[in-house]
Amino acid sequence: MAWWMKLSLSLLVLAWRFGGWDSEVIYRNSDGHVIKFNILTNETEIVLTNTTFINFNVAKYSVSPDLKYVLFAYDVKQVYRHSYMASYSIYNIHTREVWELDPPEVVNSVLQYAAWGVQGQQLIYIFENNIYYQSDVKSNSLRLTSSGKEGVIFNGIADWLYEEEILQTHVAHWWSPDGERLAFLILNDTLVPNMALPRFTGMTYPKGKQVPIPQGKCYLEYINITQAGQSNPAVKLYVVNLYGPTHTLELMPPETLKLREHYVTMVKWISKTRTSVRWLNRAQNISILTVCDTTTGACVTRHEESSELWLSKQNQEPVFSKDGSRFFLTVPVKQGGRGEFHHIAMFTTQFRADQNEVRHLTSGNWEVTRIIAYDENTDNLYFLSTEGSPRGRQLFSVKTVGLFPRRCLTCELNKAHCMYFDADISPTNQHIILHCKGPGAPTVILHSLNNSNYYILENNSLLKAALKYKRIQRTEFRTVPMEHFDLPLKISYPLDFSESRHYGLLLLVDSAPGGQAVSDRFSLSWDSVLVSSDNVIVARLDGRGSGFQGQRILHEVHQRLGTVDVQDQIAAVEYMMTFPYIDRTRIAVFGKGYGAYVTLMMLKSTDSLFKCACAMSPVTDWKLYASAFSERYLGMPLRDDSRYQFSSVLQNVQALREQTLMLVHGTADANIHFQHTAELVKNLVKVGANYSMQIYPDEGHFLSQQSRQHLYATLTSFYRECLKEELLPLPEEEEEEEE
Amino acid sequence: MAWWMKLSLSLLVLAWRFGGWDSEVIYRNSDGHVIKFNILTNETEIVLTNTTFINFNVAKYSVSPDLKYVLFAYDVKQVYRHSYMASYSIYNIHTREVWELDPPEVVNSVLQYAAWGVQGQQLIYIFENNIYYQSDVKSNSLRLTSSGKEGVIFNGIADWLYEEEILQTHVAHWWSPDGERLAFLILNDTLVPNMALPRFTGMTYPKGKQVPIPQGKCYLEYINITQAGQSNPAVKLYVVNLYGPTHTLELMPPETLKLREHYVTMVKWISKTRTSVRWLNRAQNISILTVCDTTTGACVTRHEESSELWLSKQNQEPVFSKDGSRFFLTVPVKQGGRGEFHHIAMFTTQFRADQNEVRHLTSGNWEVTRIIAYDENTDNLYFLSTEGSPRGRQLFSVKTVGLFPRRCLTCELNKAHCMYFDADISPTNQHIILHCKGPGAPTVILHSLNNSNYYILENNSLLKAALKYKRIQRTEFRTVPMEHFDLPLKISYPLDFSESRHYGLLLLVDSAPGGQAVSDRFSLSWDSVLVSSDNVIVARLDGRGSGFQGQRILHEVHQRLGTVDVQDQIAAVEYMMTFPYIDRTRIAVFGKGYGAYVTLMMLKSTDSLFKCACAMSPVTDWKLYASAFSERYLGMPLRDDSRYQFSSVLQNVQALREQTLMLVHGTADANIHFQHTAELVKNLVKVGANYSMQIYPDEGHFLSQQSRQHLYATLTSFYRECLKEELLPLPEEEEEEEE
Repeated sequence: MAWWMKLSLSLLVLAWRFGGWDSEVIYRNSDGHVIKFNILTNETEIVLTNTTFINFNVAKYSVSPDLKYVLFAYDVKQVYRHSYMASYSIYNIHTREVWELDPPEVVNSVLQYAAWGVQGQQLIYIFENNIYYQSDVKSNSLRLTSSGKEGVIFNGIADWLYEEEILQTHVAHWWSPDGERLAFLILNDTLVPNMALPRFTGMTYPKGKQVPIPQGKCYLEYINITQAGQSNPAVKLYVVNLYGPTHTLELMPPETLKLREHYVTMVKWISKTRTSVRWLNRAQNISILTVCDTTTGACVTRHEESSELWLSKQNQEPVFSKDGSRFFLTVPVKQGGRGEFHHIAMFTTQFRADQNEVRHLTSGNWEVTRIIAYDENTDNLYFLSTEGSPRGRQLFSVKTVGLFPRRCLTCELNKAHCMYFDADISPTNQHIILHCKGPGAPTVILHSLNNSNYYILENNSLLKAALKYKRIQRTEFRTVPMEHFDLPLKISYPLDFSESRHYGLLLLVDSAPGGQAVSDRFSLSWDSVLVSSDNVIVARLDGRGSGFQGQRILHEVHQRLGTVDVQDQIAAVEYMMTFPYIDRTRIAVFGKGYGAYVTLMMLKSTDSLFKCACAMSPVTDWKLYASAFSERYLGMPLRDDSRYQFSSVLQNVQALREQTLMLVHGTADANIHFQHTAELVKNLVKVGANYSMQIYPDEGHFLSQQSRQHLYATLTSFYRECLKEELLPLPEEEEEEEE
Repeated sequence: MAWWMKLSLSLLVLAWRFGGWDSEVIYRNSDGHVIKFNILTNETEIVLTNTTFINFNVAKYSVSPDLKYVLFAYDVKQVYRHSYMASYSIYNIHTREVWELDPPEVVNSVLQYAAWGVQGQQLIYIFENNIYYQSDVKSNSLRLTSSGKEGVIFNGIADWLYEEEILQTHVAHWWSPDGERLAFLILNDTLVPNMALPRFTGMTYPKGKQVPIPQGKCYLEYINITQAGQSNPAVKLYVVNLYGPTHTLELMPPETLKLREHYVTMVKWISKTRTSVRWLNRAQNISILTVCDTTTGACVTRHEESSELWLSKQNQEPVFSKDGSRFFLTVPVKQGGRGEFHHIAMFTTQFRADQNEVRHLTSGNWEVTRIIAYDENTDNLYFLSTEGSPRGRQLFSVKTVGLFPRRCLTCELNKAHCMYFDADISPTNQHIILHCKGPGAPTVILHSLNNSNYYILENNSLLKAALKYKRIQRTEFRTVPMEHFDLPLKISYPLDFSESRHYGLLLLVDSAPGGQAVSDRFSLSWDSVLVSSDNVIVARLDGRGSGFQGQRILHEVHQRLGTVDVQDQIAAVEYMMTFPYIDRTRIAVFGKGYGAYVTLMMLKSTDSLFKCACAMSPVTDWKLYASAFSERYLGMPLRDDSRYQFSSVLQNVQALREQTLMLVHGTADANIHFQHTAELVKNLVKVGANYSMQIYPDEGHFLSQQSRQHLYATLTSFYRECLKEELLPLPEEEEEEEE
């Protein structure tokens, strides 16, 4: 294993979840113990020792709300980006008793989901697409739904499209704050076409069994996946009452969307009986935020958005006042030349529930990225924003009264190492856990919001020490001057960089529309090895279509995927080619997913700009990709749709003939199907184009640890070979240029 | 297209079938016209002009026995090695009327098979696994079977296993000589597991159609395939009476095989009502030749063979005298150190039908490869053999009386260019068509057996002229001295070869057990380009396990696939490394199918012998390969079978880590499934081995023309790059060696 892979493991500690109370924080420390930390008394207690994890082969854990039990997940098998199948057991912290969590009449069950509720020992789990509920660890399971059908009807759990493109989680149910009610989606995929993912390996028959196997020997996993223009899953939202006689009620979509295809993109409880819901039409340009009374099922529209292009940030949760009369939301607000930026709007009910007074609490050429909490006692709203730099994320508070004065809470905290924050606030807004995610090694600190006390929960000292010792790279931020916008560029140099030498350049293209590649977030991967060991300069650009720089830049890709974003990446390379220390004959590009799409489009529109390129899991035709993504940018595909055709890699692949191209794909990729690469290869063969290839049999979009290691070795050696300096001595150009 | 690919097209003319009568030969000439040639009058007549083929888009054709109609096949789609699906039409030669051949109530049908019978306008075709019969072109179709079920019950047509491994054709029915009866197999694959071949490309949904597609989007083709140790297809042999009331009778296997799993490997009619049948047990070491009376169904055993290892040549058709009392067959006969060779035995009935007098007509350290015909009038038996050289095939006649004197009929014919013959004899043994297949450019000549008249049907002048102009290579035959046997080696040198230079060496491993790579057969492929243009020396070896050199060499691989055959290939390389003109640092290997298996096994057992290697469609585990093949050499697999494990490429792949390896595979390969490569890649990834890969999406074991072109370009550039001379000047070793 490469040293930097070992290092990045220690970052995992930060990914574990924190359960927070006002005076107590539960977390897993870097030794692997689960710790209960009392902020008031400054006392720590080990809830679970690290050996427990080893003894029970635990992959994931969570502590019950009453802190008496732990739910262990083991034999975890990743499904899609977020979802996984696992077996579960319950562990009594005090008695150390352990038992399996199984649906009634089932043994050795593998569940799609299991978690504690919000009160005591409430448990919920999902099995065969049905939701089961237990009021406590020893009580009988109650099946809350019965319509579940594998691959067809999904209760409380997302299908592929909802997980990947709509909810951005596989969890499609939401607890009311008192644990008395549960809201959940039912997704009906009856009309959604299936995509079969073949399995190639591990398929020798059980010996001695001579029975017909109708399903065939090439094991298949069928997944429901809507490609552009095809039938989407039908969605319905229900609330079930868990106390007293079980009773289920549908929450109805607003009239204007009732008869049109739509998505439910967000559900958030705002009181014990009321929940807010966002409904989005299929074209993704009309969105309605309703508040629903879950005792009657009546929903009232509280806010509508529409766009001539598409609406972004549709997962955003509004933050409501306790009485529900006021809520906060970020909405696009026109600023200067870069168009609209997301800023905080305060909506206050006037006379009728659907009439709001709107006040804008923030403004400027920067963006509010997340509203964290509203403290009604102090009139403070806490939020993260890019104020100061689009690369960073700082925590601010803004007063919801007066002239809305705002204050940065993190700007002066460890300025050299921490400029990119995330935050979790305690329920009564007394404490905040700050996750410093870069540019230095990530750390986690618990801060009081009342005084200057703080506690370091994780300072990642091992990683820090290793980084100091390894001295990997130094990073520079620049801007590429363009006609309308200057675009941010991040360049990593070897530590012993000298302007008088010549370096190979690797461009990494790794974000989809709305994403951000140039930020202050810490990262460490295979490309760092090339910088530190192979004298390669690595660059990343946020071109048109990228996020956090205003909607104008983002919206440039509307109906034009693969054109302006591709032009910008090329422009960035051409810009860097003017640097005297860049060797124009040694320029390479790497992209994954959407980035691989951009990579291939770049290769098609350049002649010999790149010495070599690698495209991993590329999208090659948007018609083949998920509806919710493709349609957002390119609309519903028409017959012979020119936008889709124009944006396809598969057109005119002759242009790829003379390129040195490596393709990488997992054959069981459920996200970007192997089909994309297969179609490309077929066309490459047709025109006699040369390419090399790396497949990962039966691996999905997210490779296993083993395959990832192999991939990283493959990539580093591919680019090392491609970008290495020729042995011939260079003419001494530098001296001439200095004259 | 490479020049040599264009050339080899002209060879295709020779592949078209000749229909022969005693005074007339029908063939397609190099202009593409179908010609009727009368031998007696020396007159030619155009039956079908070449434009007919273009006008009707005809891929294959055949002329009716009465010469009045032509059956055209179009839209031909290859299925496995021999089988194809096609649409058919019937063309009236005189009126030029054309109509489709369709089963009753079906339009635009795609048939599995269609052909003329043996009399008049008899027609037979196979649709949805059932046999249909028409007594003439205008009559109604009669469905002869009704049990046909796609992928399950096969009537008159082979399933995958029978096509590839047992019959070596997809045709599983046989006409009686008078056309009154048809023998056919029914293969029941109910218990045979399915293998699903995924389809990756060309799968966008029909637009605007929003219906559920239960089968899934990754189109699959299921094929019935028995892997080693699994359930085989059950076989039954029937004869149907076509004249008068249709009546079907089963021909029963011999008692000893009735209750054991067995194959039917050969059916040949010996009179209007009697047919000979060979039955082989599953272990392939007991074989029974019966003669069956098709009016009663009674079968009598005429000959039995058994072996402690396995029986070869089980497709061989016996040649019977008209009254059935005598037949000829080649059988293994013990000779010298190289063990048994196949020689002609004459079996004559004594007293009872199952008691034969056996006389051996030939003997020696050479092999009779095919008995062609028995002329009872002249007591001549015609046959092909390797007498003189195992590399060649010459036509001989042997008298079936007296001291069995034999005469070579072809040995003096164009000795320089023709040493490898095949032959078709006319029904009354007056004329013979000789196919000269090498070493020069292939030609076809019609010879009289009564006088010295001959007619050149195809002299391949275009190819000959091109070859003369291109001056491709020169070939040398050597033997590799080994402990027990000397093994034949074929080496191709560049025309300007000089012993004082250094050359890269490419070893081609391309034959399965029983095959022959070192022969006088003409061949021209991508490797010739490397020899003629890139100064590469190409070598082929027939090691242990190869055919035509006696059974001892063949049987050496019994229970030892991948050991002795692999050792021999390595020994050949080591032998050639002693040649002063071979550069020991530039040695490469290529193998396909079984050869790819050997290639991988060689790489595993050598350290840095090969600079690079390519394995195309490799078998990596015999457990995953067809039962009839794997079990023949390795027996039925037991639990944790050490022979299977030892012969698997998948064991200890660490040894492949440091090799420069390219893998090539079509993802829809029905013969050697993509599974083999996938399993290997998975293991390579596990041990972090590097490799490169070329996949052909949705292509089978036999690549399309387009993909083949791409493959050849890939292979030539891969080996060109690998075997090219380093730019550094070599020390002048040659002079030192000459001292």
